[in-house]
Amino acid sequence: METFDTIGIIGAGAWGSALALVASRAGRKAILWGRDAETVASVNAGNGNPRYLPGIPFKEPISGTIDLSEAASADLLLLVTPAQTLRAVLRDLQPLVASGTPVVLCAKGIERSTGRLMSEVLVEELPQARPAALSGPSFASDVARGLPTAVTIASADGALADAIADSLSAPAFRPYAATDLVGVEIGGALKNVLAIGAGAVAGARLGKSAEAALIARGFAEIRRFARRRGAEAETLMGLSGLGDLMLTCSSVQSRNYAFGIGIGEGAAVADLLARGRPLAEGAMTALIARDLARREAIDMPITEVVAEIVEGRLRLDAAIERLMRRPLKREEA
Amino acid sequence: METFDTIGIIGAGAWGSALALVASRAGRKAILWGRDAETVASVNAGNGNPRYLPGIPFKEPISGTIDLSEAASADLLLLVTPAQTLRAVLRDLQPLVASGTPVVLCAKGIERSTGRLMSEVLVEELPQARPAALSGPSFASDVARGLPTAVTIASADGALADAIADSLSAPAFRPYAATDLVGVEIGGALKNVLAIGAGAVAGARLGKSAEAALIARGFAEIRRFARRRGAEAETLMGLSGLGDLMLTCSSVQSRNYAFGIGIGEGAAVADLLARGRPLAEGAMTALIARDLARREAIDMPITEVVAEIVEGRLRLDAAIERLMRRPLKREEA
Repeated sequence: METFDTIGIIGAGAWGSALALVASRAGRKAILWGRDAETVASVNAGNGNPRYLPGIPFKEPISGTIDLSEAASADLLLLVTPAQTLRAVLRDLQPLVASGTPVVLCAKGIERSTGRLMSEVLVEELPQARPAALSGPSFASDVARGLPTAVTIASADGALADAIADSLSAPAFRPYAATDLVGVEIGGALKNVLAIGAGAVAGARLGKSAEAALIARGFAEIRRFARRRGAEAETLMGLSGLGDLMLTCSSVQSRNYAFGIGIGEGAAVADLLARGRPLAEGAMTALIARDLARREAIDMPITEVVAEIVEGRLRLDAAIERLMRRPLKREEA
Repeated sequence: METFDTIGIIGAGAWGSALALVASRAGRKAILWGRDAETVASVNAGNGNPRYLPGIPFKEPISGTIDLSEAASADLLLLVTPAQTLRAVLRDLQPLVASGTPVVLCAKGIERSTGRLMSEVLVEELPQARPAALSGPSFASDVARGLPTAVTIASADGALADAIADSLSAPAFRPYAATDLVGVEIGGALKNVLAIGAGAVAGARLGKSAEAALIARGFAEIRRFARRRGAEAETLMGLSGLGDLMLTCSSVQSRNYAFGIGIGEGAAVADLLARGRPLAEGAMTALIARDLARREAIDMPITEVVAEIVEGRLRLDAAIERLMRRPLKREEA
């Protein structure tokens, strides 16, 4: 099995920092790249990442850097930048990354301007990389604290997925290898849309039963979308699909769920999306997924409704009524 | 399509009473049978069911009775008695139920003494009935309050499932018909085992990520078990599987989740199972499912662990370590 001794983590936010800790705990040399010199200095001084992971000490050695080439020369790269900035970061990385370097996508979303999945953007901008993705139910703060976590690591090259899983495995961090990269990406991106919907139901105090029904029926939409893209049903039922969906829809630690709660409580979407607030990637994913679904004639009524709510064109009570009043149908459909 | 004008609900607990309200809201005549004369009198006096649904007014007409034959003569029966008492109730019903009457199983579990599913018990004791099941994410109090809810109604006879769904459909209660009765039953029963496990993780404050991982990997066990019994994968991903699992593992309103939290907080299982406390059916299901899985050589490590915890033979921290230390594997397996 291939081994990766040095791991470069691109992006020093909460999730990037947590993954750097994982790499270090797994016995690898972790090189964490960030733009913010202050954060990098704090990491190097052993003071953790007070901006994104306040109150969590970093006991394991991490080498912080603001020099992209330093991280880019590692044996394995973890890309942890937000979905909408991935392409720009990949362009910066293009001249710095050696041919055949495995690159693991760790951010979830769909590129707004193109409708492309993260792996599609990766292939376009960094063709010399071997693509993989890491996804699953994992709050950065849980992982950073060393609480038990399990994730999926997917690559079309199964042996590569196994090797990455092996390189990142630590007592409290259990990766499962998989080969359905597209399925992992779609589950990770679309679950954020449902989290907004579920949050809205919670915010409007419509009951846990309604919330669970919305998630289950919304999950059927994700599976329809994924099937059309060639993903395997099994993937959606795993850690990166069901598992992450469950986590995202169960806690206000999830930005998308919290965003939905705000909507359900009657806040204006514009206020919730205003600068300075944490990014709810699902708001963007809802619009893109709705457009893609329409173009490809995939029935996604809940995604439609979330998109219209995000656009400020539909009120929650009207949305619920529209969903409940549809003609009765077989569940299999 | 067949229509059912009168609906007999057998069991006047929280869920039976809520379903009687649903039947009434759907425009049917609802006859609610219970053993407790006081509850029945309260229902007939328009005072609701203060014992099981305190504080919820019953605005819709329900006819309460302690005469089993009165309810048993309805066009359609909903059976809402606990899993372990189902067989005894069916024996009482046997001489009272007309041939061809559709009987909808609404309680979840596996019979302890035989390892049989509810539908198998039904066929043995009430062979003249046409079997169906109602399951899905639905807290009785949410349904009774008229909050939006969606459930699955399954029968091997698809036209019957459609007709039952049509007869129970109301503005806030949306049934989806399905044909995979066994899949619906297995999802409904086994989810309670995972709820105990998830609750234990929550009670021990191991983080939401660990909880979601346990549920996702546990869901893979349920699917393995269901596949062996001939259930369809699709059913498990629906309202009665994923949806109900999600609800059960998300709220202390769920008795099984609350039971698990008690374990995670260090309470003795014997105390939690003591008389007078609400029944955590999953504690029994865990033992039965573990035994069935061993006999049929189905790999169910999380179910094993929950069973051993319920038996008081394994501590939670040792259980987590055992689950996390297993050899790395592919997620598909």
